[in-house]
Amino acid sequence: VTAPGLLSVVGIGPGGRAHRTHAADEALGAANVVIGYGPYLDQCADALAAGQRVVRGEMGDEAGRAARAVDEARAGARVALVSSGDAGVYGMATLALEAAAALPEGDRPRIEVVPGVTAALAAAALLGSPLGHDFACLTLSDVRTPWADVERRLHALAAADVALALYNPRSRGRPWQLGRARDILAGHRPGGTPVGVVTDAGRAGQRVTLTTLAELDPALAGMTSLVLVGASTSRMAGPWLVAAR
Amino acid sequence: VTAPGLLSVVGIGPGGRAHRTHAADEALGAANVVIGYGPYLDQCADALAAGQRVVRGEMGDEAGRAARAVDEARAGARVALVSSGDAGVYGMATLALEAAAALPEGDRPRIEVVPGVTAALAAAALLGSPLGHDFACLTLSDVRTPWADVERRLHALAAADVALALYNPRSRGRPWQLGRARDILAGHRPGGTPVGVVTDAGRAGQRVTLTTLAELDPALAGMTSLVLVGASTSRMAGPWLVAAR
Repeated sequence: VTAPGLLSVVGIGPGGRAHRTHAADEALGAANVVIGYGPYLDQCADALAAGQRVVRGEMGDEAGRAARAVDEARAGARVALVSSGDAGVYGMATLALEAAAALPEGDRPRIEVVPGVTAALAAAALLGSPLGHDFACLTLSDVRTPWADVERRLHALAAADVALALYNPRSRGRPWQLGRARDILAGHRPGGTPVGVVTDAGRAGQRVTLTTLAELDPALAGMTSLVLVGASTSRMAGPWLVAAR
Repeated sequence: VTAPGLLSVVGIGPGGRAHRTHAADEALGAANVVIGYGPYLDQCADALAAGQRVVRGEMGDEAGRAARAVDEARAGARVALVSSGDAGVYGMATLALEAAAALPEGDRPRIEVVPGVTAALAAAALLGSPLGHDFACLTLSDVRTPWADVERRLHALAAADVALALYNPRSRGRPWQLGRARDILAGHRPGGTPVGVVTDAGRAGQRVTLTTLAELDPALAGMTSLVLVGASTSRMAGPWLVAAR
């Protein structure tokens, strides 16, 4: 009797053991096959077990990994598909669920999404509680979304007066988007609005910078940064950035 | 020599061990004093240690608990202040940091915020990946925020076309806010927009209902529910609600 296949899409949190959940550990440890982007596999290496088949994927081949994970589970394997942060926030869950949904109903494997500490929460905790009241998460990546749509959302979210967690603020191939986002937000919020830039939260080389909207230097952010922008409810409480009710 | 005081504001996730992090476990286990709302202490009882002083608080006395936690840490104790979900998302972190900030700088204890899996993430994982693209978290509680402000944000967030996670959608004392929010959102989004209502995510009695904006019955939600509302990028993929890029 073959064990029924199961695909767990596992959010491993910001990296390292501290902010990873027990459910993530258990899904990783119980898998026959573990699939993920190489550096994320390294971040959860301590949760893997001997004898597992580990498939290291490349950046940019997220859809390929999702399809492979669905295929393996369909063939009866217990599969862990690794996602950074929360699997359901700019993570692997959508791709995996869409790959499974494309199959005839009887061919779909069982799938569970294992939530995790997403980058916004890990970064916020290092600054105080900047997401303590209403907030939005927005990606500045225009790889799959037209930049005009990102701008429209930036304007609307700025008007909504919620704190913002900006994902994918900057990379070598997308160097100008954060500066443009800053300029848009500065049209809606005071220049003194607190801004936090957190890089490699919870990992080696973690960096936390507190600045303001007017003074935000995009060069502070890189591929592994998260930028938090305050709202009118945001303020400094001693050394901590908080959002009041 | 007295150990230096430390206040850890600990997000225990949705309740139960599965979605709690190692850092949360460690902060809870290492504390001399554990302070929290009674039912949340029960949810993390397995992480507590023998010989700890456990202070069970009442609903509504969040500020009192935060002040007490700061006082104990200031007096040299290692304190865990328990918060449901993520301590920094509608949680105890803001109150604790504000209480500490009110002290003269030299009297402030060390404070760390331990992030956790917030309700929106735990609820989303049960539906698929409805928060897979841009989203906002909004509380419908008008206990500390004027309802007019909540309405203004609802309109702006609806216009921003992001998925919404509605916290505190309904309680005995606030029975009409969710219906009013639904009506506002229905003015911006199609009636067929998918809506998920998740109650007691990850706990005993967990309930997941998938409906639409037009058909959302506020009676589905209670004090321990989270309501997820799709955006134009949301769609059903087989049985799963996903947000596409």
